Amino acid sequence: MILKKVLSINAGSSSLKFQLIEIPEEKVLAKGLVERIGLDNSIFGLKYNDKDEEETLDIPNHDRAVELLLERLKASGVIQSLDEIDGVGHRVVHGGEKFSDSVLVTDEVLAEIENVSELAPLHNPANITGIKAFREILPNVPAVAVFDTAFHQTMPPESYLYSLPYEYYEKYGIRKYGFHGTSHKYVSERAAEMLGQPADRLRLITCHIGNGASVAAVENGKSVDTSMGFTPLEGVTMGTRSGSLDPALIPYIMDKTGMDVNEVLRVLNKESGLLAISGFSSDLRDIQKRADEGDERATLALNIFADRIHQYIGSYASKMNGVDAIVFTAGIGENSKVVRELILQGLEFMGVYWDPVLNEVQGDEAIINYPHSPVKVLVIPTNEEVMIARDVNRVAL
Amino acid sequence: MILKKVLSINAGSSSLKFQLIEIPEEKVLAKGLVERIGLDNSIFGLKYNDKDEEETLDIPNHDRAVELLLERLKASGVIQSLDEIDGVGHRVVHGGEKFSDSVLVTDEVLAEIENVSELAPLHNPANITGIKAFREILPNVPAVAVFDTAFHQTMPPESYLYSLPYEYYEKYGIRKYGFHGTSHKYVSERAAEMLGQPADRLRLITCHIGNGASVAAVENGKSVDTSMGFTPLEGVTMGTRSGSLDPALIPYIMDKTGMDVNEVLRVLNKESGLLAISGFSSDLRDIQKRADEGDERATLALNIFADRIHQYIGSYASKMNGVDAIVFTAGIGENSKVVRELILQGLEFMGVYWDPVLNEVQGDEAIINYPHSPVKVLVIPTNEEVMIARDVNRVAL
Repeated sequence: MILKKVLSINAGSSSLKFQLIEIPEEKVLAKGLVERIGLDNSIFGLKYNDKDEEETLDIPNHDRAVELLLERLKASGVIQSLDEIDGVGHRVVHGGEKFSDSVLVTDEVLAEIENVSELAPLHNPANITGIKAFREILPNVPAVAVFDTAFHQTMPPESYLYSLPYEYYEKYGIRKYGFHGTSHKYVSERAAEMLGQPADRLRLITCHIGNGASVAAVENGKSVDTSMGFTPLEGVTMGTRSGSLDPALIPYIMDKTGMDVNEVLRVLNKESGLLAISGFSSDLRDIQKRADEGDERATLALNIFADRIHQYIGSYASKMNGVDAIVFTAGIGENSKVVRELILQGLEFMGVYWDPVLNEVQGDEAIINYPHSPVKVLVIPTNEEVMIARDVNRVAL
Repeated sequence: MILKKVLSINAGSSSLKFQLIEIPEEKVLAKGLVERIGLDNSIFGLKYNDKDEEETLDIPNHDRAVELLLERLKASGVIQSLDEIDGVGHRVVHGGEKFSDSVLVTDEVLAEIENVSELAPLHNPANITGIKAFREILPNVPAVAVFDTAFHQTMPPESYLYSLPYEYYEKYGIRKYGFHGTSHKYVSERAAEMLGQPADRLRLITCHIGNGASVAAVENGKSVDTSMGFTPLEGVTMGTRSGSLDPALIPYIMDKTGMDVNEVLRVLNKESGLLAISGFSSDLRDIQKRADEGDERATLALNIFADRIHQYIGSYASKMNGVDAIVFTAGIGENSKVVRELILQGLEFMGVYWDPVLNEVQGDEAIINYPHSPVKVLVIPTNEEVMIARDVNRVAL
């Protein structure tokens, strides 16, 4: 078996997350995070073997961040030469309708990704900056773009079309795209393995519950619906995002508060969700603690958060005429037994019987239903980095 | 048994719908509609016994409309004297959080209804005009206000609170109110009777599907959730309303089209829904016809319309950990076997087995599930007028 080394990259506007992964073993050789790129006191962090290093220095741009991370990988002895890097995979938030799978980055592909940036103005430009920096410094190493939206491109028009003037779809690309696709895909494939069943024979509901949260209906290996929409604002209640609400509230809030539409949108994205209901935090752990102490608003936040996901499970079960397994992933989904319990309560009518002892699991893979439960319930830590590395291998190596 | 005559009134900005109902038999003695009030060529229509009369004349305001309808009721012989009218019930769209039941209209109550008009600026003022006209002309006859929102006031905070800054609820009354309450209440009571079971032991999902459409979860006789929200725009796809969508679309549409927020809201209310998807009509019968002829956009409109309601059924079943009966009512729900079929397809996982032959029913009460189906399925023509008359009797007579 030939071992290959792949970099898995997630570039933000002032950050760069990376993992060096050996495939097909999927062994993480090193990982790290560059923070505050272009700001004072940039931070470079690197973990490899048992080492955990951090340095504060000046990193004016993403090109420098990429150079630095390659230098440090060499200096640490994780690689001897840059020639050992066989491929680079880049997370890209939005692929529009153009990309329904990961793709080898060419000049044409890069131009297309720039074209759809309008749909994700906060994310795609940063992702593109990361791609360009690696192309500059490792021009001969194949790069692959892996899109958050790609997995959901299998949704049928019944799922992705809004009930809006049809020309909004044709002219402006207004439709449901869905996000967290790499995560939903990873856990749905992993769930099939854990259950020992072929992915193309399973009806799954995957719940990616972190600070951002989305639910997907995955039928026979394909996403058929998901709760996030044109943007990641739609769907369930999140850390600071409102999720879905009556569209008529926007002009009403504008009228009452004197804010303009973009200020209202900022409130819906940044000052709503768990933070707004609880009144003190967007962090579920804080909220759970205060709820345990009897804080009413904290309890309400917890209940609303769980209720919205619970309802999506019912909704997506109806969409597939039943479900074989429900999967929890991401920060909260992997770690909060309380949230999982609140979500799973009262699903017996559709055959969900979960074991409170097994539900104690935190951050590990587990099957937490009772043996007799017709519907299985799984906890699977997500791994978007490995998924990206796999796609680099599949598409480019 | 003492028979009483009650007027059931639905006043719009330029219209007045009425029925004279004898209770407790709930016999309709006469009914009619005044149209184009305050415009040229007002129309007065009256049906009683086997007669169906219509006249075109000048009706400058609601006071005149009320005088006229009372004159014509006497002239027709349906009543001999105004003294025979024992009570008047008025449909009022919005009761805010103040009214969780129908109420005898007093000066204080009228002031309260005016207070909540801000929440329903298109409807409440017209309803108030109707109430005032009857108070003027029949000052000694008790009047009862029956609110579209009242039945949903039993929703718990988990259902009615949006994930928005909490002070929006406290200061501006921003929450889910729900509508069509009189209809959801009527059909849920009638469903219990038809099933021969006490209403307070049943989990029902009631689907009011007309040009406006909403779904409600009714547990033990109480509404616990409903699809319409702060306004009737939220929820499922409707004739011309978009239903729920990603709130971030509003600024995006404004940006792309140059419309201001109120123009976008008008599009979402008046130019979206079935009309927008099909591209030619908001009338389901037209759409069904073209879908039968193979029109793709018509088929898509039909499928999206049914899908959204289907998903709410799954969602609300999960909310109540199952459902005992699903009820269809209002124009489309009572009459379209095709829409009912599309909605009911693929609910076997939760115990819904319906009979295609029984589903042929149009406009009559029917139980359309197979005998062995754990979940019952009912078609019940709604009757808001009778519900209003019952409430007049209960509250004021």
